[in-house]
Amino acid sequence: MSDLQNDLFLRALLKQPVERTPLWIMRQAGRYLPEYRATRKRAGDFLTLCKTPELACEVTLQPLDRYELDAAILFSDILTIPDAMGLGLHFTEGEGPKFSNPITQIDDVNRIATLEPINDLGYVFDAVSLIKKELHGRVPLIGFSGSPWTLATYMVEGQTSREFRKIKTMLYKEPQMLEQLLEILAKSVADYLTAQIRAGAQAVMIFDTWGGVLSREAYLKFSLFPMKKIVEKLLQLKTETEVPVILFTKGGGNWLPEMAATGCHGLGLDWTTEIDHARSLVGEKVALQGNLDPAVLYGSDKVIRNEVNKVLDKFGQGSGHVFNLGHGIQQFVDPDKLTVLVDAVKELSPSFHSPV
Amino acid sequence: MSDLQNDLFLRALLKQPVERTPLWIMRQAGRYLPEYRATRKRAGDFLTLCKTPELACEVTLQPLDRYELDAAILFSDILTIPDAMGLGLHFTEGEGPKFSNPITQIDDVNRIATLEPINDLGYVFDAVSLIKKELHGRVPLIGFSGSPWTLATYMVEGQTSREFRKIKTMLYKEPQMLEQLLEILAKSVADYLTAQIRAGAQAVMIFDTWGGVLSREAYLKFSLFPMKKIVEKLLQLKTETEVPVILFTKGGGNWLPEMAATGCHGLGLDWTTEIDHARSLVGEKVALQGNLDPAVLYGSDKVIRNEVNKVLDKFGQGSGHVFNLGHGIQQFVDPDKLTVLVDAVKELSPSFHSPV
Repeated sequence: MSDLQNDLFLRALLKQPVERTPLWIMRQAGRYLPEYRATRKRAGDFLTLCKTPELACEVTLQPLDRYELDAAILFSDILTIPDAMGLGLHFTEGEGPKFSNPITQIDDVNRIATLEPINDLGYVFDAVSLIKKELHGRVPLIGFSGSPWTLATYMVEGQTSREFRKIKTMLYKEPQMLEQLLEILAKSVADYLTAQIRAGAQAVMIFDTWGGVLSREAYLKFSLFPMKKIVEKLLQLKTETEVPVILFTKGGGNWLPEMAATGCHGLGLDWTTEIDHARSLVGEKVALQGNLDPAVLYGSDKVIRNEVNKVLDKFGQGSGHVFNLGHGIQQFVDPDKLTVLVDAVKELSPSFHSPV
Repeated sequence: MSDLQNDLFLRALLKQPVERTPLWIMRQAGRYLPEYRATRKRAGDFLTLCKTPELACEVTLQPLDRYELDAAILFSDILTIPDAMGLGLHFTEGEGPKFSNPITQIDDVNRIATLEPINDLGYVFDAVSLIKKELHGRVPLIGFSGSPWTLATYMVEGQTSREFRKIKTMLYKEPQMLEQLLEILAKSVADYLTAQIRAGAQAVMIFDTWGGVLSREAYLKFSLFPMKKIVEKLLQLKTETEVPVILFTKGGGNWLPEMAATGCHGLGLDWTTEIDHARSLVGEKVALQGNLDPAVLYGSDKVIRNEVNKVLDKFGQGSGHVFNLGHGIQQFVDPDKLTVLVDAVKELSPSFHSPV
């Protein structure tokens, strides 16, 4: 597979034989790492870190220098697209992202419909190119985006939410407005991921952090349908090698067959979904990524090894599994605990595969 | 069924024939009602409202005066037991409940093991008796408690949490300590619900608000197992008429068969679980309660009627359904919208039942 020294991750996503289970960790470049905190401090603030390709590259590579991971993931924020749409993204200490100009009416939707946000996202593609160069083919690079529904929740709520009152009011009161917004976002996300692939991303993942707050019917219409349109566009791209697409809906364990039917290559699973059950449902169709409870990393070394083994054992024999946590690694995890996890996957997973 | 004028709710939970689908609304006595806000203001603060039987009775009855609901539910706080254990419950405006003395070590667990918290919860049983008297048999009265796991999350975290870092650290690092804590809580909750039944509650519900943040294995061990012990104790009580027990784990849609196997009479469903799917899985064994997305009440009258009809239609013909939202009614709902919902259930549900 081109000049990649380690293509385990891509092979597992394509369900090709692998000699051991590949792994990477959601949010692997993050606050639990002292070297990340140092770079972040040097950057001054989070958005500067995201918007400076050299710094984004630096933190992307940090976890790879510390751990034997099988993929890098672009360091960026999930809200780059709405930021480029002029919604006034800013971060308040301890409260997460906020938008100064949230979407509240149809005029706002019409206004953003005329934009080409990727014109202002050059810093992301520059970061992808730079990371790709600095990786020297060690492992593949994953690009990513938030899902249209997830982006819309922040754009309409103006911030993180618990009850999603504003966007659900739109959903039940003015569904056409929401559909129009999601259509614009689906186009933007497809363009955004295409540009990341053109810049060098070898796989892409769509993070649907908030799809799980919807009823089944609403999920299918307002979260999955726009993601399906993106997957379809990405599958039509002409690329040198196949670029796998992973969908991850947190709390989406009830909708795996419908997610797999989008044509994506892999599904991310959070820790509330059993990976053996998921495999029996959709394992013929897609690879599975996950799904250790991130909190296991607060346990003893023995507990971590034991829990890693359970996930491997539940997935069972054969390819199609990418080991990961069921959600991002948490800020207060001791970095040495991740070493225990990585070692356990390396050591325990070969017995679930035939030698290649 | 004794001197009850309306026993639809109890009959539906026992899967006996009913002429229409009964309904009540989680958090029906709550901030969306101006009369509730007035009483709350008069009480001064939330805990005084909970701890004054006359005031708790007043707010319990308010929604019944406004809407034709088929059950009353005791107005109380979910954290009365840990409060009686001396953990120092208090409320901070906009931040929810906090404990001054959370459980952080085994000494804390040993300390609360010696307590009989129900000795200090007389105000709850007084409220139950008073409400029962003031109801004059209009509808049944539901008693309730938080689940041991849910109580433990607040007791260990000291407050509402997003990642549940402290209690999950205990779970993965010192599981025996957590089991000991949960055993104490299971006993306390069983005693608490028994005393509510003795005081007049005609059904009880266990709210497992946070069971859904666990993996399957952890859920079965740390959330469901203690609830099962409570259900078993309650089923052994000698009472004049059968007292149905409802279990509700928010986000527990993956574990319905195991929940139903506890011997409980009914399962609460949040809106992410399909009620037709749930019925096909466990409908022979238990009644189902739910499960409209609370945000539907932000929709137009037409949308509300339409969504009510979908839930009724998905459950289908026959008894064993108690209509409810999938979670508590939200603070910013227009009270008139609940009238639309109640009217829709009254009008549309008889066609799903044979005349009794």
